[in-house]
Amino acid sequence: MIKVGIVGGTGYTGVELLRLLAAHPQVKLQVITSRADAGTLVNQMFPNLRGFVDLPFTHPDEAHLEQCDLVFFATPNGIAMQQTRALLEAGVKVIDLAADFRLKDIASWEKWYGMTHACPDLVAEAVYGLPEMNRAQIKTARLVANPGCYPTAVQLGFLPLLEAGVIELGSLIADAKSGVSGAGRKAEISTLFAEAGDNFKAYGVSGHRHLPEIKQGLARAVSKEVGLTFVPHLTPLIRGIHATLYGKLTREVDLQAIFEARYVNEPFVDVLPAGSHPETRSVRGANHCRIAVHRPQGGDTVVVLSVIDNLVKGAAGQAVQNMNIMFGLPENTALNNVPLLP
Amino acid sequence: MIKVGIVGGTGYTGVELLRLLAAHPQVKLQVITSRADAGTLVNQMFPNLRGFVDLPFTHPDEAHLEQCDLVFFATPNGIAMQQTRALLEAGVKVIDLAADFRLKDIASWEKWYGMTHACPDLVAEAVYGLPEMNRAQIKTARLVANPGCYPTAVQLGFLPLLEAGVIELGSLIADAKSGVSGAGRKAEISTLFAEAGDNFKAYGVSGHRHLPEIKQGLARAVSKEVGLTFVPHLTPLIRGIHATLYGKLTREVDLQAIFEARYVNEPFVDVLPAGSHPETRSVRGANHCRIAVHRPQGGDTVVVLSVIDNLVKGAAGQAVQNMNIMFGLPENTALNNVPLLP
Amino acid sequence: MIKVGIVGGTGYTGVELLRLLAAHPQVKLQVITSRADAGTLVNQMFPNLRGFVDLPFTHPDEAHLEQCDLVFFATPNGIAMQQTRALLEAGVKVIDLAADFRLKDIASWEKWYGMTHACPDLVAEAVYGLPEMNRAQIKTARLVANPGCYPTAVQLGFLPLLEAGVIELGSLIADAKSGVSGAGRKAEISTLFAEAGDNFKAYGVSGHRHLPEIKQGLARAVSKEVGLTFVPHLTPLIRGIHATLYGKLTREVDLQAIFEARYVNEPFVDVLPAGSHPETRSVRGANHCRIAVHRPQGGDTVVVLSVIDNLVKGAAGQAVQNMNIMFGLPENTALNNVPLLP
Amino acid sequence: MIKVGIVGGTGYTGVELLRLLAAHPQVKLQVITSRADAGTLVNQMFPNLRGFVDLPFTHPDEAHLEQCDLVFFATPNGIAMQQTRALLEAGVKVIDLAADFRLKDIASWEKWYGMTHACPDLVAEAVYGLPEMNRAQIKTARLVANPGCYPTAVQLGFLPLLEAGVIELGSLIADAKSGVSGAGRKAEISTLFAEAGDNFKAYGVSGHRHLPEIKQGLARAVSKEVGLTFVPHLTPLIRGIHATLYGKLTREVDLQAIFEARYVNEPFVDVLPAGSHPETRSVRGANHCRIAVHRPQGGDTVVVLSVIDNLVKGAAGQAVQNMNIMFGLPENTALNNVPLLP
Repeated sequence: MIKVGIVGGTGYTGVELLRLLAAHPQVKLQVITSRADAGTLVNQMFPNLRGFVDLPFTHPDEAHLEQCDLVFFATPNGIAMQQTRALLEAGVKVIDLAADFRLKDIASWEKWYGMTHACPDLVAEAVYGLPEMNRAQIKTARLVANPGCYPTAVQLGFLPLLEAGVIELGSLIADAKSGVSGAGRKAEISTLFAEAGDNFKAYGVSGHRHLPEIKQGLARAVSKEVGLTFVPHLTPLIRGIHATLYGKLTREVDLQAIFEARYVNEPFVDVLPAGSHPETRSVRGANHCRIAVHRPQGGDTVVVLSVIDNLVKGAAGQAVQNMNIMFGLPENTALNNVPLLP
Repeated sequence: MIKVGIVGGTGYTGVELLRLLAAHPQVKLQVITSRADAGTLVNQMFPNLRGFVDLPFTHPDEAHLEQCDLVFFATPNGIAMQQTRALLEAGVKVIDLAADFRLKDIASWEKWYGMTHACPDLVAEAVYGLPEMNRAQIKTARLVANPGCYPTAVQLGFLPLLEAGVIELGSLIADAKSGVSGAGRKAEISTLFAEAGDNFKAYGVSGHRHLPEIKQGLARAVSKEVGLTFVPHLTPLIRGIHATLYGKLTREVDLQAIFEARYVNEPFVDVLPAGSHPETRSVRGANHCRIAVHRPQGGDTVVVLSVIDNLVKGAAGQAVQNMNIMFGLPENTALNNVPLLP
Repeated sequence: MIKVGIVGGTGYTGVELLRLLAAHPQVKLQVITSRADAGTLVNQMFPNLRGFVDLPFTHPDEAHLEQCDLVFFATPNGIAMQQTRALLEAGVKVIDLAADFRLKDIASWEKWYGMTHACPDLVAEAVYGLPEMNRAQIKTARLVANPGCYPTAVQLGFLPLLEAGVIELGSLIADAKSGVSGAGRKAEISTLFAEAGDNFKAYGVSGHRHLPEIKQGLARAVSKEVGLTFVPHLTPLIRGIHATLYGKLTREVDLQAIFEARYVNEPFVDVLPAGSHPETRSVRGANHCRIAVHRPQGGDTVVVLSVIDNLVKGAAGQAVQNMNIMFGLPENTALNNVPLLP
Repeated sequence: MIKVGIVGGTGYTGVELLRLLAAHPQVKLQVITSRADAGTLVNQMFPNLRGFVDLPFTHPDEAHLEQCDLVFFATPNGIAMQQTRALLEAGVKVIDLAADFRLKDIASWEKWYGMTHACPDLVAEAVYGLPEMNRAQIKTARLVANPGCYPTAVQLGFLPLLEAGVIELGSLIADAKSGVSGAGRKAEISTLFAEAGDNFKAYGVSGHRHLPEIKQGLARAVSKEVGLTFVPHLTPLIRGIHATLYGKLTREVDLQAIFEARYVNEPFVDVLPAGSHPETRSVRGANHCRIAVHRPQGGDTVVVLSVIDNLVKGAAGQAVQNMNIMFGLPENTALNNVPLLP
């Protein structure tokens, strides 16, 4: 059994980790920390866990995380980088669901996240936890930077085209739409039901933290810089991301074949039949990414539609997938549930 | 392995049965029928099932249901009663998720459902499939009438009070609210997103088909008629029923203790701590009923709050629970998933 | 022109007042205060007001409210009672949309609202601003306590029955459902989209501040105490309240006739034809209350369905209606817009 | 008073026309036709109209539309073209809210709409009713083709850039998101609450009827063909369209100034301050289009955000605006209501 600790279990990625890990046959949930809610039963805050998780939240000072085999950070940005070194030195593996270890360029990270980084050397060591890109390295990693939600949907959609070298690299467009849980379980006016309900808007058009992360991943795939316009939108879903991706074809290709070949062995990337339109609800609660590729009117613009559940493949599910890989388990352990539709 | 057939797999109870049965280790999905969609892959209509269910819909005439061990009817009312006798005679067990076998009083059934009943003798044989009430009989039943969604939530909320004999029987009130999936996957204007979204209304106040079903169950519990006012409402949820129940206490009792004692051994009925308010999302996608009991201002009115997922404990999940009982399996087989929150 | 000031214009009742007053031909919006947002253009926070309201928020210290003819308080509870005396002494009329002047019983108010009241004498003077009950007194009032949202829907539904003396007074039940805007524009986790969306729950079953307000109003109508069980619920609507009311008939009556007679001259109470089910969206954005009365199965339980828009008839619209009455204007001035459906 | 008839008043554009016209001081609603619902009171189907519209639906054969000054067609495609000639010959002006007269290229229309056109000569005469483009011609038109909802949002967003000649014409991208009311009030499974709720998807990527309409309008603005990729999406809103538009700049320009200058005199197009993100709810129920223009990271991709209410500026409101222009009334008559937020 893998002894697992979770730091910061009161947010949506935290409760989602708990939902998935509660059903994991090789995991022993050791401790879940929360400074503010120490002593409260986890299942009092999240009654869906009644009968599945009986632990209370533990104060970080009493968590003894060094006794775990693996610690997940489901914390705000800037927390994991303070505690990771000690855990690694104690032989504990770490998966950070926040952004602390995602950007290799420290200066860029510090600019976008507005903090000084506490451990640039660990950033260098950290493996970017997108299994479809980095599976081999994840297998042997001590420290995994779990990707952001938008970056997961966008990179999985663009990768086949980039790797096949069939689109212009200078003018990629990612028009992405996210459900409101992506903003986290934080008391804020802008994500109130009466604000975000029955409403649709773009945000962060001038710049969003996931932009450098996506560009880093795409650049790595082609070993050169890419030009990307990224426009995120908030849509009245609880869960779900839909990325609509646009690129300019540079030559005639069988797009469907490229996508199918790229993902033929991937357990969690599902290339839909030609002509399909994936729906966010088709992955609700599950770790799948479903993708369709189109070439409208036979022109030179390729359109990729990519959907994930932002809390699963975009966060907690991908983290469990990474854990499975790191611990040599079948990759879909505890991730084989059928999406909830309707 | 239990060879299972599903008649009418294109509605919400059908796809929900498939979601649950796809994960059932003792079930072999043999056939799913649909007259209109014969030949279509099930997972083309319901892409959440991609990778889990590979069958096409089969035309009823070619379904060979008699080769199944168990057939679920997820059909409109009036279908199961036409086909059940032949199946039973072929040694196939039947669970009807529609209403054909729910009301023992044939005249009442014919009035509320507007049809002549095809097999009153089978109604007499059928066991009403509320395990918390009829577990022993379900165990040996050939034919189970799976309860309606409202009746499940309302009966589970009232039963402890009735069995304990602590409320007036003449003036029960059930104010129930249902998500829109309860109306089924039918092309109708009144359940369009632009009609039912951001809108709340009562319906059927003068009379609803679930009224006689609830009254029958409550009457059985106390061996006498009960007076019930039942007001259903449509609320902009996809899934979920919240029943708010009112009764007049006839003597001093420890309400919390009554509820806890009644359901202490029930795997799917969860009595919340005193003072709680169950949320529908706390059972989303799961077979649980969560219940809280209140006595506002210490008066003589008792208020029970009862929530279920109308497609799970209110339909497909309860059907699987009944199947597990009928076939001697652990009752929670394939029903042990954590509810999806948020 | 009536010179109008609004104290606390950054909440939902504030922006709704602005929406209505911007179209009022006899109103000059003089000043809108906000401590936190002084200097910000109102229409920057609420872009729906672009082209209609060009004022900035003014700091309370610079508001010169004493130069207004009328001041609306759209503030949290406990603010209006601090400032009302000075305004009244300066000859300014006051309408408080919060609860400071709603309960005549000071001890009860202090218990439910957890504060010491600053001006019990003004509570005695204040007129409860439900025009269908108190029109004559409102006409000459200096200080109006605008009713709560639930109390408006519930009282309008019960009044005809109480005044006609046809129901038992000891066991009234009000099962009420509110949209999320009723909780205000406050940064709180429980009303986030990802918490309140696709979810339904009761709250405050053990006691809610609107309970004593409703009981006070009903008691006044019959000149004796009434027994009421009040259960509020949160439903995933932005706007709207649906109250489902239950009472026990004491004699044979023509319920439809009683309701129609009671409200025949009321411009904002619409009694629907017998057998109707009012929808919350049928009053969205408008000052109407729509009511239907039922007697299921001809029994002795009467069921009243009452819907309002909690921000209009339940708050800002009723406040404008009160203003119109206080200033001798046609009661529907600026309140004659068609509800927005769908 | 303008005597107005509405053909096909049972859909969402019909009820929205009624909402707006009921408040129009120069309009006398003469007749509203419906074949299926003749005899039913309009306000029975749409209770928001109680107290505002007292007419019943009239059977088309008894409608005497030739006695109107103006007839609106709020019908499915293919109806208006059958009846328009007779009306025009009787001296009646016509505004078609469907697509019959939108495309000048008859062959294209017949391909996209799958019908033979009944009156190509009237197509030639018809004026495309986008006032911001064609105001002068609308003023004298007998027959106006009211634009589609997507085309309105997309054209208003692209026009300033095209007219200023600052973007490449070959690779425009319009990523558009629509609320569900855009699909009409038709009994269809795909727009049920339980299908379209909590779900997001693209549709019609291979081709949508609004594509040729948009291309026609944009081409007219620059007197040459444009290349456009148009991807519509369905988002769980009742009302609202958000178009996110992408183009490649061909030279340095002050984008904000271009947009402000283009629309400085337009009563219903609101260019937001630089850096803004318009929300669909900021135009809910109103005839405004709000637009913001961005140039992310100072690159050569321009991003335009354009929002409308699909039922108002995208349908009924624009139709009333066209009527006002045709009859010499102030353009904002009956269109000056404040959007409903929240």
